Amino acid sequence: MTFALDARLAADTAALGDWPLCRVLAMRDARYPWLVLVPRRDGAVELTDLTPQDRAALIEEVARAADALNAETRADKINVGALGNVVAQLHVHVVARRRGDFAWPGPVWGNGASLLYAPEDWSAFTRAMAARLGFSPGA
Amino acid sequence: MTFALDARLAADTAALGDWPLCRVLAMRDARYPWLVLVPRRDGAVELTDLTPQDRAALIEEVARAADALNAETRADKINVGALGNVVAQLHVHVVARRRGDFAWPGPVWGNGASLLYAPEDWSAFTRAMAARLGFSPGA
Repeated sequence: MTFALDARLAADTAALGDWPLCRVLAMRDARYPWLVLVPRRDGAVELTDLTPQDRAALIEEVARAADALNAETRADKINVGALGNVVAQLHVHVVARRRGDFAWPGPVWGNGASLLYAPEDWSAFTRAMAARLGFSPGA
Repeated sequence: MTFALDARLAADTAALGDWPLCRVLAMRDARYPWLVLVPRRDGAVELTDLTPQDRAALIEEVARAADALNAETRADKINVGALGNVVAQLHVHVVARRRGDFAWPGPVWGNGASLLYAPEDWSAFTRAMAARLGFSPGA
């Protein structure tokens, strides 16, 4: 079977590019610099649906995303979560948190509606992250 | 430096045993079957503070904890999260979720006070999990 990104994830994000395992998405929520990594393995829901080799690749890609977010935002803390209570397709959130941000110190999930980016801020964020993640701008 | 478990994590949990990388804790919150894995690496706060080898070990231990929780509870979804906004010491939550549980479909974090286990339920949970995780009961 071929990989297809969940429609709800696709609606909430923009794709920045593909790493060896994951599709890397930027979340359309101006409250937090936020990436989502989706292993391109059709039908994967839990971490235990991946092979150990894929899990090792996943956590390295998560670390790489965390480093890039941190370099771009100088976050106080990176939050990493794989929940999947709403969208079953296995996906890992990597979120840059700052003391005093909208949900601090609580989690970003289940904490109200997303805040729309101003178009220029969205463009700046996605271009900056694409460059830091090793994707050509606009890829 | 030697590993010391954060005092707040220690207060909220019971230690079930040590795996090669992590200390495995059971959370004292009767709302959810909930484990916490703490890499025994002094000073680690972010995933990026671990070596790639330790990260690979961590995600395998997370998968093993998820399997054990799932086998014990027949969860609808396993939630995995490394937040650290309150307790800095790197720790990974592995939580068995059920449709209709207290916070469903939201996250368990930041969602009100813990519910105390009845002593017999706590004993049953920790003994069952210790056995499934490969620790001798009471270890």
